[in-house]
Amino acid sequence: MQASADTSALIRELRQHLPAEALLTTLEEQRPYECDGLSVLREMPCCVALPETVQAVQKILQICHRHGIAVVARGAGTGLSGGARPIAGAVLLSLAKLKSIIDIDTENRTARVQSGVRNLAISEATRPLGLYYAPDPSSQIACSIGGNVAENSGGVHCLKYGLTVHNVLQLEVLTAHGEVLQIGSQAPDSPGYDLLALMTGSEGLLGIITECTVRLLPVPEHTLVLLTAFSSVVVAAAAVSAIIAAGIIPAGLEMMDQLAIEAAEDFVHAGYPRDAAAILLCELDGQQEELEESVIAVEAILTRHGADGIRVASDPATRQLLWKGRKAAFPAVGRLAPDYYCMDGTIPRKRLAEVLERIAAWSTEYGLRVANVFHAGDGNLHPLILYDANQPGQRHAAEAFGQRILELCVAVGGSVTGEHGVGVEKLDSMCAQFAAAELDQFHRVKAAFDPEGRLNPGKAVPSLHRCAELGAMHVHQGALPFPQLERF
Amino acid sequence: MQASADTSALIRELRQHLPAEALLTTLEEQRPYECDGLSVLREMPCCVALPETVQAVQKILQICHRHGIAVVARGAGTGLSGGARPIAGAVLLSLAKLKSIIDIDTENRTARVQSGVRNLAISEATRPLGLYYAPDPSSQIACSIGGNVAENSGGVHCLKYGLTVHNVLQLEVLTAHGEVLQIGSQAPDSPGYDLLALMTGSEGLLGIITECTVRLLPVPEHTLVLLTAFSSVVVAAAAVSAIIAAGIIPAGLEMMDQLAIEAAEDFVHAGYPRDAAAILLCELDGQQEELEESVIAVEAILTRHGADGIRVASDPATRQLLWKGRKAAFPAVGRLAPDYYCMDGTIPRKRLAEVLERIAAWSTEYGLRVANVFHAGDGNLHPLILYDANQPGQRHAAEAFGQRILELCVAVGGSVTGEHGVGVEKLDSMCAQFAAAELDQFHRVKAAFDPEGRLNPGKAVPSLHRCAELGAMHVHQGALPFPQLERF
Repeated sequence: MQASADTSALIRELRQHLPAEALLTTLEEQRPYECDGLSVLREMPCCVALPETVQAVQKILQICHRHGIAVVARGAGTGLSGGARPIAGAVLLSLAKLKSIIDIDTENRTARVQSGVRNLAISEATRPLGLYYAPDPSSQIACSIGGNVAENSGGVHCLKYGLTVHNVLQLEVLTAHGEVLQIGSQAPDSPGYDLLALMTGSEGLLGIITECTVRLLPVPEHTLVLLTAFSSVVVAAAAVSAIIAAGIIPAGLEMMDQLAIEAAEDFVHAGYPRDAAAILLCELDGQQEELEESVIAVEAILTRHGADGIRVASDPATRQLLWKGRKAAFPAVGRLAPDYYCMDGTIPRKRLAEVLERIAAWSTEYGLRVANVFHAGDGNLHPLILYDANQPGQRHAAEAFGQRILELCVAVGGSVTGEHGVGVEKLDSMCAQFAAAELDQFHRVKAAFDPEGRLNPGKAVPSLHRCAELGAMHVHQGALPFPQLERF
Repeated sequence: MQASADTSALIRELRQHLPAEALLTTLEEQRPYECDGLSVLREMPCCVALPETVQAVQKILQICHRHGIAVVARGAGTGLSGGARPIAGAVLLSLAKLKSIIDIDTENRTARVQSGVRNLAISEATRPLGLYYAPDPSSQIACSIGGNVAENSGGVHCLKYGLTVHNVLQLEVLTAHGEVLQIGSQAPDSPGYDLLALMTGSEGLLGIITECTVRLLPVPEHTLVLLTAFSSVVVAAAAVSAIIAAGIIPAGLEMMDQLAIEAAEDFVHAGYPRDAAAILLCELDGQQEELEESVIAVEAILTRHGADGIRVASDPATRQLLWKGRKAAFPAVGRLAPDYYCMDGTIPRKRLAEVLERIAAWSTEYGLRVANVFHAGDGNLHPLILYDANQPGQRHAAEAFGQRILELCVAVGGSVTGEHGVGVEKLDSMCAQFAAAELDQFHRVKAAFDPEGRLNPGKAVPSLHRCAELGAMHVHQGALPFPQLERF
């Protein structure tokens, strides 16, 4: 890929302000950046900038603004929806080198860190002080806190401790023009419009995050994991609803179906019951007595709801092994077929059983196997559709099947993404989620931050034109254009 | 007040679409609407509209848009910062008649209600089902849920259960042009920009809220209130920090100083110790065993931190009496002087003692008594400055004193409003809280929703011009232009 005349001038100017190693311009150097976690979509940027200071980030933005060049921000590039995928002709701005932990305040229980700091590095630094950062996406060993904020990442423990948006207090953000905004406060509420929540989950379209102040929590005194087998996913789903209805908030409440169980068991030997149609992993934490009470209550509910056997793990090694199976479920399932398509949608918890039944029926219809691994407590589904891209039509069928699942999520009152973001992958699904008035409002908010549309253009929010071309797809809860969804 | 030619045409058109009783145009009819809870500022609107349906609200907005007339939305008018104060020449749009409880979903634990429904009415309707709506501003008997969302209201129980923004899932909003937006979802996260959080606390400047879906919580099994006396506010403040640092999250943690104690005791005879320099009210709730454990832990902390006596109330009547004193503290203090100025600022909890000391010193300097009543656990202060408007200079001195307190809040890393909003009262303080770039961003967000600036103009966010006229007031944490704040 050859830089155009325009980008040559840009690169020349960037070179004047960045150390040589902070600007990658050859095809070879840029190769590791050609995609993010959504690896099926690859593209080459005009260059990759790796600034080491906020001032350098600001300079890059000012130069790009002057040259009229778009900018794609990237944390660790682990996102699954293509939010950090490069755009041809645009600068890929990596924040990976902004990795200082600036301050840990044990009294206010906050950590102030640069946006390139890894999610897990925050807990590693604060655990000796008895504190940790709660949101834990599966990629937490690698993903950056800035990327977490940009995608409003979730994780196994978000059922009890909230998504990223509930654990971030302040942000330093640079606008498309390179202006610095201080957003949020350490107080419970901040006056003015809630730009902190607005920026969280905005997928790099509103500003570049350079610094985050996050909330820390005390490490729980005690933790237990319950592993329960069930004879069907429907029965397991009812148990999940019953636990939540009882007012118990587990630290994590995850379900896996048979295909996922077998795959995970073969892969990491976590000790899952191979013959179960579904398993639940339920983590409870807290002080000793509170925990004992909760375990008794949860065991009673599980038994009443047809549990086929309950195992309680209290020692750290066994707990970790049980979670290891869950956390490795995606790559484990990936070994079952040449390709898989990981979906991410949410539904109201009470619709879980019927949605899973419908997915099973479609699986037969499309002739594609589906493994289900999901945050059951949150109603956040991750169906993994297995296919073989080398078989004619299978990739297309998998995509159609996936799209149908997302439309079903919207139709039952949920949404097209739980925690993976929209990126480029879910653009069409957004047409099903939102009416034109709402999409239009999104675009006006974008323009209020980035009037020239230079930050991550074409991602996260589809154009009205794109939705119009797809036809009348909008399926706001209740209004169902799809005959096959009638019974929902 | 005579309607101008322009507003006459507007009123004529509104009359065609609204029943006679839904449009108030005479001075006498409009009198009850001339101010909100900030009663020192009064003004007459061009008319008061009281629509009974969302369609009527939409019609009013469309007509106002066509006539170029501004609109001020009003819930119950209990706000304390003038957010719902009428504007001369503008339509005052009361949502008070939108008071249907549309749906209560016990399984998903949500209530879908129109925006004019009173805060307490939600809990009254759901309590028979074992559920309630947690945020409880002092005005909860009267204030409306739509007003709560517009102001992001807090309350005694927000320490544990969050502000309004943490308890709202979906909104139906009408734009300035009368377009309907469905915002948020019942899923934990919603794709697209977080307009739900953005709308919450936007004080009627971004849209008109017509419907809210709120989260319900199970009524706690058991509740206890601990009343503790202390020999100084500084000692009490240290006890507050120690409770939070121990990882205990009380349902409420409130402090009152001596002047407030005496006033409340004279007013409601709650049984407070009159000779205490400060009292703490600490509410704990939960299941029996968990609660017993917490009480023991809190009592130990309080004793270690110099508690002068601890009383534990478990029966509902005594608990209610203890809270009655706290909830009536504002009017009780109001009996001590002809006038009082109620402040609302937040600070990081660890700065509590020094901020209270500084307020006491200023009280002496200004010769004005101050009673302190506040959400100690949240770091949300409510100093009540006593004065007599009939004494020359006292009102001015009270305002200057109050402004200084708010600047101090910002200087120590807090904010100029905790839960009462900015309205018209805190406009100048916003200049201290935010830099020009941030205020400018707020205005651009406003324009993205209301390009003509017709919704509640002149409130919540000061113009850059206004801040410039006040001089360089910006005191972002760390940068302190005020010599008197040097030690903070």
